[in-house]
Amino acid sequence: MPLTFQHHHQVVFGDCDPAGLVDYPNIYRWMDGRFQRFLHRYGGHGAVCDALNAVGLGMTETQARYRRPLRDSDALTIRMEITDWAAKSYRLSHRGYVGEDLAFEGIEGPALFEMREGRIRAGQVAPLKTLLESPPET
Amino acid sequence: MPLTFQHHHQVVFGDCDPAGLVDYPNIYRWMDGRFQRFLHRYGGHGAVCDALNAVGLGMTETQARYRRPLRDSDALTIRMEITDWAAKSYRLSHRGYVGEDLAFEGIEGPALFEMREGRIRAGQVAPLKTLLESPPET
Amino acid sequence: MPLTFQHHHQVVFGDCDPAGLVDYPNIYRWMDGRFQRFLHRYGGHGAVCDALNAVGLGMTETQARYRRPLRDSDALTIRMEITDWAAKSYRLSHRGYVGEDLAFEGIEGPALFEMREGRIRAGQVAPLKTLLESPPET
Amino acid sequence: MPLTFQHHHQVVFGDCDPAGLVDYPNIYRWMDGRFQRFLHRYGGHGAVCDALNAVGLGMTETQARYRRPLRDSDALTIRMEITDWAAKSYRLSHRGYVGEDLAFEGIEGPALFEMREGRIRAGQVAPLKTLLESPPET
Repeated sequence: MPLTFQHHHQVVFGDCDPAGLVDYPNIYRWMDGRFQRFLHRYGGHGAVCDALNAVGLGMTETQARYRRPLRDSDALTIRMEITDWAAKSYRLSHRGYVGEDLAFEGIEGPALFEMREGRIRAGQVAPLKTLLESPPET
Repeated sequence: MPLTFQHHHQVVFGDCDPAGLVDYPNIYRWMDGRFQRFLHRYGGHGAVCDALNAVGLGMTETQARYRRPLRDSDALTIRMEITDWAAKSYRLSHRGYVGEDLAFEGIEGPALFEMREGRIRAGQVAPLKTLLESPPET
Repeated sequence: MPLTFQHHHQVVFGDCDPAGLVDYPNIYRWMDGRFQRFLHRYGGHGAVCDALNAVGLGMTETQARYRRPLRDSDALTIRMEITDWAAKSYRLSHRGYVGEDLAFEGIEGPALFEMREGRIRAGQVAPLKTLLESPPET
Repeated sequence: MPLTFQHHHQVVFGDCDPAGLVDYPNIYRWMDGRFQRFLHRYGGHGAVCDALNAVGLGMTETQARYRRPLRDSDALTIRMEITDWAAKSYRLSHRGYVGEDLAFEGIEGPALFEMREGRIRAGQVAPLKTLLESPPET
């Protein structure tokens, strides 16, 4: 069963551009924030990295498709799933809805960065999967 | 009785700088967003401006004092009060708390901008006060 | 010959997260800003939309791959090309370099949004291509 | 003679809100970035902190007054001066101009944060003053 997380954001005036539409980099900011908030269940980004001897959980690639415009006051629900676990990668799939309407779909492709021989490299993600599937802190 | 509004924000990793502390421009972004969310009760910034024949509710001055550092995972409660109504100005007072600790105090000094003779000028705020003190939309 | 544009950004402390690395939504912000600055040659986003009877030049999809970490002080050169003109779409290809090293590759997939029958729809981009290939304002 | 620094920013569409005016938190982002870029002359925020045994150069208070609206394409020149050196504080004064017109005035009140007995405290800024007045790295 995939790990899932849901969160709400009410779009505000300052999220929008002079055309009245959400400026898309904000959508990435919300996706990025959702994963980081999910990690709070496990003590946050720093605690997770410490537990796994990693330097960061950063992204190797990200993408998004915008299905309908978002405007001031739109009540956005963002659903995140963690899927596609491979040796050194996994995927965060985000879907943003206003009511029943899909507003955007985004994918973050993170890695577990380790410091090896003075360079940052992608490490095995199995220990992260084990940690995230364990009962979170309460 | 002052108009008040309360909101929560859980600080995320991406809100923080390499010293691990919240980068202060984000605090203004949260204050700005809080007022804009408050306006959603009245139809949002655009509807309020239309009702008052104004072009914007922008700021003439803002300031903040930072009382304690904010970090990833901090559960922030921001309390906003609207005070100090004068002829052409009013004040938004924001206080951010983590538990009982005051993290920041901020003031936004907005005006009600009107277009007069091709220039943007500050107008009388009494109609805005009347509108905000009326029962909001439900 | 593709339309190209080059710009510089020196990474600052506040662009980076507690791991000391640039938070990726900032990279989209830089890409988005580059295209908008390119449009300044033609009078800016608003003037271009007015000339084409469009409501916006927003994105239908965006993506990026991160090739090496970016840190405080890195002197970034972003090269943008406009390519892949089709009936209702085109692509903005961005490459970010620090010296000779490729730091990121990003693609923005914009559309030319028009208001038709009360809905926002993607329109023909040929008039935009003609405008961008004409000698810009000086 | 005060330490001064000047920088340019061309306002882009995405810096502006649905009223077409720059959203003021961006102005703080530019001020913050300017000081951080100034520090690049001395190796950057991290190198300066290491040299002074500090944990950060964060702000205790900030403020700004907005003198005229800023819009897409405005060519902004920001002039920063470091002034008012006291025992544990100094001030960064920022003025933003479009041509000859003053668009905003801002003040950042930074401290030199040290870790003492497990708490972050403001330290003496004299060593920072000495460092900033020495010939910068070339």
